[in-house]
Amino acid sequence: MERLEEFQLIGRWLSGFDRGPGVMLGIGDDAAVLRPPLAHDLAMTVDSLVAGTHFPVTAPAADVGHRALAVNLSDLAAMGATPLWGLLALTLPSADEPWLAAFAAGFRALAERHAMALVGGNLSRGPLMATVQVTGTLPQGRWLGRDGGRAGDVLLVSGWPGEAAAGLALWEAAPSLARDHLVRRYLRPEPRVALGQAALGVASAAIDISDGLLADLGHLTAASGCGAEVELSRLPLSDALRAMRGPAQARHDALYGGDDYELLLTCPAAAHAVLAAAAEAQDVPLTRIGQLCEAPGVRLLGEGGEVLAPAGGFRHF
Amino acid sequence: MERLEEFQLIGRWLSGFDRGPGVMLGIGDDAAVLRPPLAHDLAMTVDSLVAGTHFPVTAPAADVGHRALAVNLSDLAAMGATPLWGLLALTLPSADEPWLAAFAAGFRALAERHAMALVGGNLSRGPLMATVQVTGTLPQGRWLGRDGGRAGDVLLVSGWPGEAAAGLALWEAAPSLARDHLVRRYLRPEPRVALGQAALGVASAAIDISDGLLADLGHLTAASGCGAEVELSRLPLSDALRAMRGPAQARHDALYGGDDYELLLTCPAAAHAVLAAAAEAQDVPLTRIGQLCEAPGVRLLGEGGEVLAPAGGFRHF
Repeated sequence: MERLEEFQLIGRWLSGFDRGPGVMLGIGDDAAVLRPPLAHDLAMTVDSLVAGTHFPVTAPAADVGHRALAVNLSDLAAMGATPLWGLLALTLPSADEPWLAAFAAGFRALAERHAMALVGGNLSRGPLMATVQVTGTLPQGRWLGRDGGRAGDVLLVSGWPGEAAAGLALWEAAPSLARDHLVRRYLRPEPRVALGQAALGVASAAIDISDGLLADLGHLTAASGCGAEVELSRLPLSDALRAMRGPAQARHDALYGGDDYELLLTCPAAAHAVLAAAAEAQDVPLTRIGQLCEAPGVRLLGEGGEVLAPAGGFRHF
Repeated sequence: MERLEEFQLIGRWLSGFDRGPGVMLGIGDDAAVLRPPLAHDLAMTVDSLVAGTHFPVTAPAADVGHRALAVNLSDLAAMGATPLWGLLALTLPSADEPWLAAFAAGFRALAERHAMALVGGNLSRGPLMATVQVTGTLPQGRWLGRDGGRAGDVLLVSGWPGEAAAGLALWEAAPSLARDHLVRRYLRPEPRVALGQAALGVASAAIDISDGLLADLGHLTAASGCGAEVELSRLPLSDALRAMRGPAQARHDALYGGDDYELLLTCPAAAHAVLAAAAEAQDVPLTRIGQLCEAPGVRLLGEGGEVLAPAGGFRHF
């Protein structure tokens, strides 16, 4: 009983940002009461981060708080939705107040940056794990699905894919490098919310890269009933990634590394300039890396346009 | 990677009931797309069940599935809300398909009974744990809060409090009794959704009993800025509870035992008959056990109306 009360006490770190648009009743009753905006639909998703599976147990608490929310906001971004409300279920092995304070600070900073209210929470004793549910808004009847890609559409990726995988490898080898740029890219992915919003009604399909560029491209093409060609020479490889990993491993990281939480977008060629301008205005790199095609499956094209490997069996260079 | 795919495969047990009112896009994209009903507000809550903390690791999977949803629907019931959509984040130590199939069956049966669509899910490897987020609807601007109780209101409780605590004790002593009535009351609480809906606009305050009758009454009175008197002679003690535990322990279970997920309701005396009629129509016991009063705190009254103990320090008979 005393431990439960202690958990309730430290739960206060997570209260106090439950105000915002549509919040009629925030934290403190059996449920929150929320008023959805007129003429909008809602996008909802849930995702868990388990210590030891989805982040190293030694990860700084503020980064875990950021990341637990970021992976969910990234799903909203991939739908073109605008974050509105979140709920958090957190389990901790013990009532560790400094850890919770840092976690809350990381979570809250990202939530406030996206004007998202935390309207409900649940803190209990258990294995270290954070489950976040988020709700975003969409103009009625419109969303960025995975299934709208068509043969001929250009294939675009935001940011610098592969950096997160390289960062994780770097950090696991040398935890003292927690402030390194690549490590930060793993620990603190930046959900591409504004880019997703700009792509709504322009892009034909979207997905966020959590499993790796090729794996998620496979999901997109399967849902869209088409295939894709990725031109290796067009892959955006950051200087930091190439310097640390060398060109071959950098390419591998970009294609197969997960945890980037960048957006993979497709659009008709005529709409490419609109997306490019939106990304530029947001200072987010957006690179054309290939195109969708009729033949199912994902193919990698070499410098001369030769097919290097089909997707599926392909694993390494 | 293979293990992840295995998890995706068994996740199919949890798909297929993502259709229902307002579901524009169900499971399978980065997020679900949902259309909220006109002129309604939404009630949202999240709750986790951790194996070893919130249920015994040996609990039958179908019961865990039922219970993970039931504790959340109980929170909606305590707001007077009608269940609409749910999301589930489940972690399993291994890809145990029979366990998941049974969990899904228990979860789904309760969801379908309340016409709730499962619109999103997340299945991953980790400690055995289920986190459920539910959304319900409320007529715009109306909800059953904890804070509406007033001195003079009658205090009502549904069902047979204490049965769940006794059932847990029984089951821990003799797991072979998993089908016993009291054990079922612990493993399969019945969220009082219809009673909560009937109480909306009639009851002055409501809370569900998860921490124990007196503890949750303490939360209600604190939020309402008043106190309460509980008349011990009025406590509804089921025959099964008294037969197993004897009168003194039965009373203790009813006052302090958690996990009942019954509703504690308050209303002006004139409205009592309305709630009583609604409960009778639903075949749910609803018993007047006391009243709210000006003086803060919760007091227990003996047969002659004498104060037996104040709340707080009081722990045992």
